[in-house]
Amino acid sequence: MGALSETLTQFLIPVAALVGIGFALLQWFLVSRVKVSSHDSSNGYKAKLIEADEQEEGVDNIEVSIKCAEIQHAISLGATSFLYTEYKYLGIFMGVFAVIIFLFLGSVKGFSTKSEPCTYNQGNTCKPALANAAFSTIAFLLGALTSVLSGFLGMKIATYANARTTLEARRGVGKAFIIAFRSGAVMGFLLAANGLLVLYVSINLFKLYYGDDWEGLYESITGYGLGGSSMALFGRVGGGIYTKAADVGADLVGKVEKNIPEDDPRNPAVIADNVGDNVGDIAGMGSDLFGSYAESSCAALFVASISSFGIDHDFTAMSYPLIISSMGIVVCLITTLFATDMFEIKSVSEIEPSLKRQLVISTVLMTAGIAIVSFLALPSEFTLFDFGTEKLVKNWHLFFCVAIGLWAGLVIGYVTEYYTSNAYSPVQDVADSCRTGAATNVIFGLALGYKSVIIPIFAIATSIYVSFRLAAMYGIAMAALGMLSTIATGLAIDAYGPISDNAGGIAEMAGMSHSIRERTDALDAAGNTTAAIGKGFAIGSAALVSLALFGAYVSRAGIKSVDVLAPKVFIGLIVGAMLPYWFSAMTMKSVGSAALKMVEEVRRQFNSIPGLMEGTTKPDYANCVKISTDASLREMIPPGALVMLTPLIAGTLFGVETLAGVLAGSLVSGVQVAISASNTGGAWDNAKKYIEAGASEHAKSLGPKGSDCHKAAVIGDTIGDPLKDTSGPSLNILIKLMAVESLVFAPFFAAHGGLLFKLL
Amino acid sequence: MGALSETLTQFLIPVAALVGIGFALLQWFLVSRVKVSSHDSSNGYKAKLIEADEQEEGVDNIEVSIKCAEIQHAISLGATSFLYTEYKYLGIFMGVFAVIIFLFLGSVKGFSTKSEPCTYNQGNTCKPALANAAFSTIAFLLGALTSVLSGFLGMKIATYANARTTLEARRGVGKAFIIAFRSGAVMGFLLAANGLLVLYVSINLFKLYYGDDWEGLYESITGYGLGGSSMALFGRVGGGIYTKAADVGADLVGKVEKNIPEDDPRNPAVIADNVGDNVGDIAGMGSDLFGSYAESSCAALFVASISSFGIDHDFTAMSYPLIISSMGIVVCLITTLFATDMFEIKSVSEIEPSLKRQLVISTVLMTAGIAIVSFLALPSEFTLFDFGTEKLVKNWHLFFCVAIGLWAGLVIGYVTEYYTSNAYSPVQDVADSCRTGAATNVIFGLALGYKSVIIPIFAIATSIYVSFRLAAMYGIAMAALGMLSTIATGLAIDAYGPISDNAGGIAEMAGMSHSIRERTDALDAAGNTTAAIGKGFAIGSAALVSLALFGAYVSRAGIKSVDVLAPKVFIGLIVGAMLPYWFSAMTMKSVGSAALKMVEEVRRQFNSIPGLMEGTTKPDYANCVKISTDASLREMIPPGALVMLTPLIAGTLFGVETLAGVLAGSLVSGVQVAISASNTGGAWDNAKKYIEAGASEHAKSLGPKGSDCHKAAVIGDTIGDPLKDTSGPSLNILIKLMAVESLVFAPFFAAHGGLLFKLL
Repeated sequence: MGALSETLTQFLIPVAALVGIGFALLQWFLVSRVKVSSHDSSNGYKAKLIEADEQEEGVDNIEVSIKCAEIQHAISLGATSFLYTEYKYLGIFMGVFAVIIFLFLGSVKGFSTKSEPCTYNQGNTCKPALANAAFSTIAFLLGALTSVLSGFLGMKIATYANARTTLEARRGVGKAFIIAFRSGAVMGFLLAANGLLVLYVSINLFKLYYGDDWEGLYESITGYGLGGSSMALFGRVGGGIYTKAADVGADLVGKVEKNIPEDDPRNPAVIADNVGDNVGDIAGMGSDLFGSYAESSCAALFVASISSFGIDHDFTAMSYPLIISSMGIVVCLITTLFATDMFEIKSVSEIEPSLKRQLVISTVLMTAGIAIVSFLALPSEFTLFDFGTEKLVKNWHLFFCVAIGLWAGLVIGYVTEYYTSNAYSPVQDVADSCRTGAATNVIFGLALGYKSVIIPIFAIATSIYVSFRLAAMYGIAMAALGMLSTIATGLAIDAYGPISDNAGGIAEMAGMSHSIRERTDALDAAGNTTAAIGKGFAIGSAALVSLALFGAYVSRAGIKSVDVLAPKVFIGLIVGAMLPYWFSAMTMKSVGSAALKMVEEVRRQFNSIPGLMEGTTKPDYANCVKISTDASLREMIPPGALVMLTPLIAGTLFGVETLAGVLAGSLVSGVQVAISASNTGGAWDNAKKYIEAGASEHAKSLGPKGSDCHKAAVIGDTIGDPLKDTSGPSLNILIKLMAVESLVFAPFFAAHGGLLFKLL
Repeated sequence: MGALSETLTQFLIPVAALVGIGFALLQWFLVSRVKVSSHDSSNGYKAKLIEADEQEEGVDNIEVSIKCAEIQHAISLGATSFLYTEYKYLGIFMGVFAVIIFLFLGSVKGFSTKSEPCTYNQGNTCKPALANAAFSTIAFLLGALTSVLSGFLGMKIATYANARTTLEARRGVGKAFIIAFRSGAVMGFLLAANGLLVLYVSINLFKLYYGDDWEGLYESITGYGLGGSSMALFGRVGGGIYTKAADVGADLVGKVEKNIPEDDPRNPAVIADNVGDNVGDIAGMGSDLFGSYAESSCAALFVASISSFGIDHDFTAMSYPLIISSMGIVVCLITTLFATDMFEIKSVSEIEPSLKRQLVISTVLMTAGIAIVSFLALPSEFTLFDFGTEKLVKNWHLFFCVAIGLWAGLVIGYVTEYYTSNAYSPVQDVADSCRTGAATNVIFGLALGYKSVIIPIFAIATSIYVSFRLAAMYGIAMAALGMLSTIATGLAIDAYGPISDNAGGIAEMAGMSHSIRERTDALDAAGNTTAAIGKGFAIGSAALVSLALFGAYVSRAGIKSVDVLAPKVFIGLIVGAMLPYWFSAMTMKSVGSAALKMVEEVRRQFNSIPGLMEGTTKPDYANCVKISTDASLREMIPPGALVMLTPLIAGTLFGVETLAGVLAGSLVSGVQVAISASNTGGAWDNAKKYIEAGASEHAKSLGPKGSDCHKAAVIGDTIGDPLKDTSGPSLNILIKLMAVESLVFAPFFAAHGGLLFKLL
């Protein structure tokens, strides 16, 4: 037993979660002190629209503030209505899938209500399979609801903060930064604390029924991960198609054909574009990372439950993953203070370093935190389940597992930054290749993305090897959780990006002065890089999580080895490696088709609405919002079905070994496609920004806006949009979701799977 | 024992090879009857320049013919001099690597000259490891030389035939088709027969020393595959960089900036471009397919030697792979007659069907051929080595293994055609997406490439499963050989493409009339599709071959299972899956940089040579040839080193299990990248041609040449160049070569490998 008593554990975890939620509310309160006038507010023009000591903005404040409020209102309305529609569809899916889970798992023992002898905790009696089916279904629904809630809350705070960031930009870049960053922190802390709290409460409630049957308890809890990730899939894919259809459509007509700037209010797709940032980058990313967090916790808990922790009923040691997450919330809280209270941003050049500093501070502090938790919560020596054998492990082994995951995340973050920030040579080379046109830009960009895979893969491989050797599959799950332990900070700097992006859009649309736009642009450029870093984290953790889930699946399905030399396994491996391509083909084509529809609509409006180009009449924003909404809801179904049905079909028809091959194949292939797609896209985006900003002699020689070089760069940026914001990040979920789904359905596949081979 | 006696086997194989060579020489003779005047021929203008019944060409025949001869001479000179330079470098590499092979393998038993007890054929004595080292080295050198010879002869006949095809085009499209096709056949038959003959002779010579030690004999013979593939790697990469640097460079300045047509003699890079077709698509492809052929034969022979065939010394059954190849030569010979003598091409629309008919005819005939060989050469029942156990197999099992490989090849060929020919909707959709510019074109093209992976992967997976189940790893090797059994026909229609492409170039450069150019364009368009089909075959067979080699490696390294759940294996798997990306990043960047240099040179010439644009002075072709040569020789080293060193480093430092993971990972990931890259590139190329040809209402609405749509299509085509002709096809070799290298070095790794893990 470790030094921490069970009572103290039961006290500390919920307290950490509540502290996190409280901190998030505090940040929200601080953001809310920036007042935005609503255009239908009763006190109208007389209200004090912004509490500012000094006004830098030359134009009339009241007018601008009202305009900002209007735009914010339109964006928030669009995002909310899209999410409601999306959730309506997802509600149906959730219901259907819950029934499938219950029926499949219930059928394992023929819906018998008899208790069974336990599988691992031999000699004891465990609850019937039917109970596991029922509780897995409940856990699935809880996970799905928490995921939806995470995405929705993130979107709400983001659309609440965007206009406030714009208005604060009038008082200086530092003030605006704080608002955007605090809003990101609201999302980060709400999400981390919420995920922890729901999981903690569910475990304790499930325990009321399960009692000492921890095998069944933690088996059922894995449904929580499945629920989280399946919502994340649709969130990412649907949101990704939405945002990129609008973005690509707006750019192709606005920037390329009509030569009007980005976010120009005359562009009919501009509101849809801004809505897209919130439903794709914010709500989608929130659901995604919540899913990773839920899954790695579930994978770790499941493996622990069939190891000595579970068999000896050592609750504190069992809760090690949750205590690590609790410590993470505390560490991130301290880290946030460095950005919001201890340092002040005084110039534009300090933004990016300040965000990067957050990563370093949280990683360093968390390393100490992990050491404390490992020595207090774990017995000094214990055994872990290792595919049928037992492995003797010491508590400091687990410290290394969690810490290596954490630091691998930092390495991946920094490599991603190197390849996607225009401060370094890779992006500058891509920008330079625009001299000879779009073709060389694309060739260099693709090559950059491919190259950016190398170091992250070595970092992931090293973490896998070390944590696997030290603590088998439990080690991998804990390494994944280590990478995600600073999720609150990660999400804060990640959500900061789209908020700043929106803030810039609002400034442009509200017709604010050039200097304000420059400030929001600077915030946005830093946000672009942090978004790429966030995606790097999401992919890295997804790789570790899915390997951990894969291990848990193999244990639960009772497979002794996954031998590549077995034909069943090998065909799974090669088909699995193909799935990311199939999936990407679907999502990219969806974005392409939806963008074509958007282009036609935008062109139609420019041609048929008189005075639109002159700015005397307003475009029909709602129609563009509708096109994005319809397209994304319709198009998210086939890729979603591919991911959700593959494990069911492979497991039922071809059996557990082939499915194991599919999981391994999609994991090792998908992670490469995901990293290269998201870095290629990020690099093109920043190469374009590099030329636009013209901050160096070299950059000036390529520009200015509208030059041939710049046009070539815009083409690259447009191609990168679906890569970096739709197919790339959705692939994380593909690999995780197939693994967690296999884990949940493992008892069914083990009992009834492999029909086709049985028939032949 | 089968019905075929050893004496008859010893007679039939060389006879089939000699018939193949004889047939190739006959075709060459028929091609040579079209006379091309050399500009320095002594009888000068008076020679009868072309034996034609009717002259359709309006311009003066003598002048045109001399111009063609000049251009042909320049192309041939450039190609020959490039290959000589390349081979000089490769000679050094071959020498160094031969020493490495000898030292590594010799060290397995400490350079002892003592005979050893056999590993598989228990109770017997086998030759010392040192002898195996020496003979492996010799086999390596033989394979390398045969590969070089295959590529070189292919290039020679191609540069001999291109101007002849142009001149024959004056007499009609059918006549020109026959010349191009016959020339392709020369290459196909020479290569297939040559590969078979050298292998057959080597086995018999090695037998003089080895006697009854077939284990050692066929272990050494695997060096033949390694030699073949390592030359192919450099041939593909070097040739690929050469041809695409010239092509991209020529297009970017010529078509995009100067608005002059493709192959315009004013373009300084035009000769380099045409040389590139011959050194990349012809010599590179020849070496590549020869490598696949050599490797699948070696893999099959190695597995057979440790099975009952080898242990019982049943020479006919042992030679089953060689007899299948012999039958393939005969079948392809008959198939060729269908194209050259039985049907005549009368209109342009018959070209593509005629080429596709070749594939179908050869496949159908070969199916019967396989049945005959399987029943005559094999005993009705025998046992095969299956990773330590023995598997009882019947002769008709092997018929199915070879046949499924053959038919899977046809399926892959047809799918490739569907996705890359502009007769079908996928390419037409890509062309249509050019309406909204280059960005949507690229998005749709990438999605098409990803999608085109699905069916080929299922075809490969099915072949693997069936042949693996029926006859273990021997089955896979024979499936690969089945796919390659009609290699002579495959290569003929493949080589036909670049020959027609060159013929078109020569017609343009010689200033021949529009109608001639139209005919060569039609030949070329069909060639584009067949080139894509050829690449499909190359990739499909590479996948099967490398799996067979992988199996042979595992057997030879004494590994019992390759368990994905072992951390050593998994890190190999994920790093292996990354290698195709690393490799592609290198090759694409190489093409990009070399193309940039070419662009600068072409621009410099246009700016500094007075009268160049007006056509009054000649450009400096040689300088462009030099740029391509230097770039490709310099740039082929890093990717080559990556492929050649990875197995050595992984095996020596991390051991045989990690290396097994690397091989499996690079195989399942590389095949996807290769297929998608080559189909995306092919689709863009044909989408551009679709717009240019304007053969339908839809196509006309996108064109004509020079329209915005067409410009967007040209950008896609340029991006596709390095994908389809450099990185895509080189990846075949990456996966095969790493596998065969691991196989050759397996005894060393098994004895001394895994240093790093031993130290830790």
